[in-house]
This record gives sequence, structure tokens and C-alpha cells, in this order.
Amino acid sequence: MIEIPARRGKAARLRKGQMVKVINTTGQQVVDTWAFNASDLHEFMSMEHSRVAIGRIIPVVGDTLVTNNRQPILTFVEDTSGGIHDTLFAACDRWRYELLGCAEYHDNCTDNLAAGLAELGLAPPETPGPLNLFMNIPVVDGNRVEVRPPVSTRGSHVALRAEMDCIVAFSACPQDMLPVNGIAMRPTEAHFEVLD
Amino acid sequence: MIEIPARRGKAARLRKGQMVKVINTTGQQVVDTWAFNASDLHEFMSMEHSRVAIGRIIPVVGDTLVTNNRQPILTFVEDTSGGIHDTLFAACDRWRYELLGCAEYHDNCTDNLAAGLAELGLAPPETPGPLNLFMNIPVVDGNRVEVRPPVSTRGSHVALRAEMDCIVAFSACPQDMLPVNGIAMRPTEAHFEVLD
Repeated sequence: MIEIPARRGKAARLRKGQMVKVINTTGQQVVDTWAFNASDLHEFMSMEHSRVAIGRIIPVVGDTLVTNNRQPILTFVEDTSGGIHDTLFAACDRWRYELLGCAEYHDNCTDNLAAGLAELGLAPPETPGPLNLFMNIPVVDGNRVEVRPPVSTRGSHVALRAEMDCIVAFSACPQDMLPVNGIAMRPTEAHFEVLD
Repeated sequence: MIEIPARRGKAARLRKGQMVKVINTTGQQVVDTWAFNASDLHEFMSMEHSRVAIGRIIPVVGDTLVTNNRQPILTFVEDTSGGIHDTLFAACDRWRYELLGCAEYHDNCTDNLAAGLAELGLAPPETPGPLNLFMNIPVVDGNRVEVRPPVSTRGSHVALRAEMDCIVAFSACPQDMLPVNGIAMRPTEAHFEVLD
């Protein structure tokens, strides 16, 4: 079991066929998730291509997410979290917190992706739109998007199967100015486990 | 008035404050639209950042779309098309048509973006998720996405104001295997006009 420390990022290598179980340890923590083709980081899991492939904005068990080349990369194989995730919102970044009124540096998922990959000696070619596990951004009346607290519970998880050799990266989202990580707005750690 | 030929791409430079009027000449033609910071093409209009900024998946008059650095780039100032556009779907590409069963090369918006910029001596650093003007992809029951014919009418238009010096690029989407461009599935030309 590997910790994604609160407000930080972590990455791991997956071989095709391996699974990664992402655990919402404390129940209300959003985990921004990315996946890159291990042999070419310019090919990565893409939300705008995945929505076309799965015909949904929120993946369900059985759905296979695809890359910007429309190749299968991760399949949802288990979900005990209540099934609410987000594919619509960009990863938070320094500009996001500046716009929210933060005068000093704020931890953010974009920098966490880079830091997680750096531990593996890699650098992201860019920050792809993430799969925001456990994040609750409903589309209301077919258009409006709202930021709501997660519906996930303590210890619930999602399991994803690698459809190609890939690098997965996670960020325990440090958002503490909006109720992205629950109404307490207190970001916590999360965990993941690689299974053969 | 500049033609975006059927199944092709076209690009233009806009100075901050100029407007571009995008005309749905025949009424049912989707126009994939991109905008890049003229001084750094790695900064471009981003749908995942814009959805956060505007709080909607479909922009309305008054909404300002932003870049991947969350800077204002284009503002919706007029819309006579019925207000239905798409920010969820990736631009079509050769892989999309291969997956739809097309054995030979098929014109596609990704290649059209590159060709449009090439006429200005430029190359896109990647294919950002486009603003799909006039494209009708409703989110049904808060999750399912459907491909429906446009609701726009002959000669209707959208006007966008540049919030920075930028390059705008358009593709008259060549999709003829799904009713993206109307139930006749017959892609046509569209037009645009730059206004001071």
C-alpha cells in the first residue's frame, strides 16, 4: 500500500494487465489521476477522447478510458465509491489559486503531477485533463456545473486495469478554498496499491 | 468574408479587441474552433479550464473562455445559432474514422487544424480540445452524451472577441458517418469574418 501524502503527488509504473486500486482512505479526498503510455509520454489518457469512447461524462465499471490516440489505457473494473467522478475540470494550478485570492504559493495538482513523475525520473510533456476520482461536479439542467462535496465514503475505492504498459500518477488534491474535498475543506492523504 | 471550405481548415490572426464572426452558412455545419496565444502557441484556449471559469459546459453570450494558463482569450459576444455548442468532445482524427470502420484516409479536424495553421507558417504544438461551435452533444440524465444534429439555422452566427493577440483556427468538420453535421451527413463550407 503506497501513500499519496496529503497535498502531494505520487506515480507508479503499471504493466499491461496489472490493476491499481485507488483508496479514498479518509472518504472525502479527491484524487486527480493521469496515465501515460510508458514508451511515449506524449500519448496519455485523455478525457475528451474518453467521453467520445464511453458515451458518458462519468465512467462506470466496464468502461475503458482511452488516450489522445484513442487507444485503450485504463479500464474501470471496480468502484465502491458511489460512482461519482469528474472528467470536466482541469487540474488545479498556481493560476487557479491566484484567481481564488491566494497571494502566496499554494500546493496544486499540476505541480504534484510533475513531482510524482520526477520521482520516477520522468517529466510530463504537459498537464493533461485529469480523471478526477471521487470529485463531484454535477452537470445541472444540462449545462451548469457545480462544485459539491464528494459522495464517497471512508476506505471506498476504484480499481483500474492497465490496457497498456503505462505510468499512472496521482495527486491528493490540495484544494482547501472550495468544498472539492468535503465541506471541512481539509485535504488528506489517500492510498493506492498495485495488484498483479 | 473568408470561406472555410467543406471538410477543410482555415486560420487567421486576431489582434486583441478584434472580433471574429463565425457563420453557419448552410445551417447544419459544425465548426471546430481553436485559439492560440499569438506570442506562444503552447498557451491556447482550453475547454477544461474554460468550464471551470464559466461554470458551464456550454458558453453563453458574456462568457469568456480561457487558456491553459487561465488567461482570458475569447469572449462570446453574439450568438444567433440557438446557443448549442460542445466543449466535451475531442476533434475528430484518423483514429476516430478508423474506429468507425473507415479503411482509407478520411479528412479530419485534427489534420485541418494543422493545415490551417500551416498556411500562416505555423504548426500547432498539439491538438487542444476544441470549442465545437454549433455541435449538439447534450448531457442526458446528468451523464450520458448523445450525438444529435445541430439546432442552428442557415446563416446564423457566433461572434467572438479576442482578449489577447491570438491565432484562431477553424475546421468545417468532415464528419459524414454520424449526424454531427445534420441527418443528411453532408459536410459543407462555413465562413468567418474578422471585424475591428
